[in-house]
Amino acid sequence: MNQVNKMNQNNPILTGLTTLVLALLLTACAATPSVTDPLPSWTTGASKQRIINFVADVTDSDGLSYVPANERIATFDNDGTLWSEKPTYFQLLFILRQVTLMAADHPEWSTTQPFQAVLENDWASLKAAGAAGWEKLAMATQAGMTTEEFRLLVNDWVANAKHPTSGKPYTQMVYQPMLELIDYLKANEFKVFIVSGGGIEFMRAWTESVYGIPPDQVVGSSIETRFEVRDGQNVIVREPKMHFYNDKGGKPVAINRFIGQRPILAVGNSDGDFEMLQWTSSGEGARLGILVHHTDAEREWAYDRDSLEGRLNRGLDEAGQNGWLVVDMANDWKVIYPYENSY
Amino acid sequence: MNQVNKMNQNNPILTGLTTLVLALLLTACAATPSVTDPLPSWTTGASKQRIINFVADVTDSDGLSYVPANERIATFDNDGTLWSEKPTYFQLLFILRQVTLMAADHPEWSTTQPFQAVLENDWASLKAAGAAGWEKLAMATQAGMTTEEFRLLVNDWVANAKHPTSGKPYTQMVYQPMLELIDYLKANEFKVFIVSGGGIEFMRAWTESVYGIPPDQVVGSSIETRFEVRDGQNVIVREPKMHFYNDKGGKPVAINRFIGQRPILAVGNSDGDFEMLQWTSSGEGARLGILVHHTDAEREWAYDRDSLEGRLNRGLDEAGQNGWLVVDMANDWKVIYPYENSY
Repeated sequence: MNQVNKMNQNNPILTGLTTLVLALLLTACAATPSVTDPLPSWTTGASKQRIINFVADVTDSDGLSYVPANERIATFDNDGTLWSEKPTYFQLLFILRQVTLMAADHPEWSTTQPFQAVLENDWASLKAAGAAGWEKLAMATQAGMTTEEFRLLVNDWVANAKHPTSGKPYTQMVYQPMLELIDYLKANEFKVFIVSGGGIEFMRAWTESVYGIPPDQVVGSSIETRFEVRDGQNVIVREPKMHFYNDKGGKPVAINRFIGQRPILAVGNSDGDFEMLQWTSSGEGARLGILVHHTDAEREWAYDRDSLEGRLNRGLDEAGQNGWLVVDMANDWKVIYPYENSY
Repeated sequence: MNQVNKMNQNNPILTGLTTLVLALLLTACAATPSVTDPLPSWTTGASKQRIINFVADVTDSDGLSYVPANERIATFDNDGTLWSEKPTYFQLLFILRQVTLMAADHPEWSTTQPFQAVLENDWASLKAAGAAGWEKLAMATQAGMTTEEFRLLVNDWVANAKHPTSGKPYTQMVYQPMLELIDYLKANEFKVFIVSGGGIEFMRAWTESVYGIPPDQVVGSSIETRFEVRDGQNVIVREPKMHFYNDKGGKPVAINRFIGQRPILAVGNSDGDFEMLQWTSSGEGARLGILVHHTDAEREWAYDRDSLEGRLNRGLDEAGQNGWLVVDMANDWKVIYPYENSY
């Protein structure tokens, strides 16, 4: 026993201080075990418990369901899953706004469908123009420019446009319980991706600031692009031609192409997410598929089998046999939008 | 002054111990400042210094060249940049091996070109078959199976195939200085991507274990894939049809599509990387483009303007005016392969 140890043994103040030092060193670097609820906007109940149990299972390195951090891939649909999609998909409302903003430079639009319908608020004609009409509007407003120019347009929309019924900026109409779920997953070393039918560059302009999800973790539909040197500047130009629809069976294909691993958790709200949940939940080991069911006509919207946006029919029929969790917005969520928490 | 402070003041042992406690607490959580060379396999000189200066500049939060961590995107070509590409691209050697392994199930190949040429080691006929011949071989050996089945074939090649001249497994023929550069960038909060002309699923089978780069940070060429339910199993099937060639002007397009941000650092070795370096280095702020010049006929291979693989012609001519760093393998690298460090 050396001199210092002898001194400690004989001096109660030193012994106590040494214990304190050790205790401080042991706790200073470890995260304080949190007793805070990770999902405060979710009501206590089966849905919340199932999510928490799943995360606990896959992160328990001694458990049978353990999944190493590098395989903890989670994919979220966007429209109707992370933010609202009524009265119609927000990107369509962006396109309508662009038509009105660009109309002064396109006098021919006042007599050309489907542009005329948009400018005259003629919803019957717009509806009659159908998907082909929407594609014309989409290409006229979102292509024929560089990726950087497009990003600025989306930024302007995020900053200045308001949702027609709530009057809120669109990026405030995201679901508070989902923001908490994303953060909870990230805190448990999940890598969280968006896999949406929405435009990939439309989403990337704001997903990092709104959801904390970086551009390379956003997968969406896309149009063709090409690299060119224009007036001495290197640019990427958006061309008016579809490249990929990221919907239905396209979602597993895009997940494989962009992410390269099968997710262990997938969250959607419509039959467009069916194959993503199928692909996710049929892998080996612990898996969780979640469908958000829009049941809250008062605080959000209530729709499922007959809705144009976010139609959920087959998903409701087969969720049970597939073991998917169906989240009931009206009952499972205390709060829908973040601004409900502001006073 | 309270009792404890009085005691400390009067007791030199306690005072010293308190100082020690504070010092321990202050240093225990911070990473010990490392004086270790982050790039030990790079010779001391201008190339190494320029890389270190660049990383120091973009990570200095008080400096004019500071780049926030979420914008520190680095892209690396693979063939000839991270691993060797002689006598030809390693994926072509994988394809040749697959032809020989599959030949027993394809008796017709013994009389069908270009398969016959492979089976008979008839290099003249194989060369005559050209790119169209290689595409036939590629599709016959890499498509018509599920992504999971393909991954197992690549894993088998990684585990069992040997390079024809070195006799080493292919995944040992990676460049030690590049492994160090990747680690150095990751330690400085760069997000590191591979952007290669190689097959995306061919690379993803082994990039995480060899380079520490996860599947979703690997961008490459791809064939078409489709999702299907086959015998009750959900699978993704590889179809014998090209989807995307990730080379030349395709690289900025793929970077924009997969990563969604312009890199601040790009590393390549051939004219196929020219546009990637152009796109990277012409952005605002601090940027670095690097070309690896294969100058070491003794330890690796020496080739540039006239090589079929990794042809570097325009890049050499224009590196200077573009401000790109040209790494001279013979002089800048102390070691080429990791196994040179083993005794």
